[in-house]
Amino acid sequence: MRFKLLSAGLILALGAGFTLTAHSQARPEAMVKQRQAAMTLQAKYLGPLGAMAQGKMAFNADLVARNAGYLNVLDRMAWDGFDASTKDVKSRALPAIWTDAAGFKAEQEKFQNAVSDLVAASKTGDEGKIKAAIGAVGKTCGSCHDNFREKQ
Amino acid sequence: MRFKLLSAGLILALGAGFTLTAHSQARPEAMVKQRQAAMTLQAKYLGPLGAMAQGKMAFNADLVARNAGYLNVLDRMAWDGFDASTKDVKSRALPAIWTDAAGFKAEQEKFQNAVSDLVAASKTGDEGKIKAAIGAVGKTCGSCHDNFREKQ
Repeated sequence: MRFKLLSAGLILALGAGFTLTAHSQARPEAMVKQRQAAMTLQAKYLGPLGAMAQGKMAFNADLVARNAGYLNVLDRMAWDGFDASTKDVKSRALPAIWTDAAGFKAEQEKFQNAVSDLVAASKTGDEGKIKAAIGAVGKTCGSCHDNFREKQ
Repeated sequence: MRFKLLSAGLILALGAGFTLTAHSQARPEAMVKQRQAAMTLQAKYLGPLGAMAQGKMAFNADLVARNAGYLNVLDRMAWDGFDASTKDVKSRALPAIWTDAAGFKAEQEKFQNAVSDLVAASKTGDEGKIKAAIGAVGKTCGSCHDNFREKQ
């Protein structure tokens, strides 16, 4: 009973974004919002690293290490949001996401591998190596966006 | 030069959300979007746990452990987005966030501590303990929202 009350409050607190159905899938609109949230946070934590690699921001090894760690978790969060049920929700997702599911999955893995490499590089203290690893992550973002995201 | 090119592509890939200024602060609108993204993902990964605690979804210890780990990183991501420069951006953030900064900070810490407790509980395999820890996290969400988020 105590759990029941707490959890009712919890669901209220979380708002309408979460709806229970089979496998606890959210509504298509909520899934789009959630996957976009993951992209937004990836940009938040990768952006400054890109600026460092580009020499537009002072290199900060601690910030790189922290953000790389965050990215290493965030890079798992967007993909289940590209459920086929979201095809008709307005977004920049291209149909290729569903017609070339294997290609899309391969891009995800390239990105996750590049982030893992960045985590490893961030522990070496080697600025050149770290900046190269940042660039490699950025390349995987661009490559996936080129093929699976609508141009603006 | 190679970094420069890669990073220009990176910044392009990331879109307009990230703008470089002193301390690499984003624009107020971007900061609001980023902090809301963190809240959206917290809801994504806490929602199913709330449903489990409430008995609306089958208890799944592996899912709890995974989501607790995600939350343990996500729970650090929203707070720098509540910069004073965002006061005038439309959102549900109440002025108390800035007039009672210590109280707001205390709520963040209560939440982070409750998530840490949930991570620890999720390793015990004790369903009752885990459900209690889920409820405790939900309580901290509600308590912060009560005081610092506009009612809908």
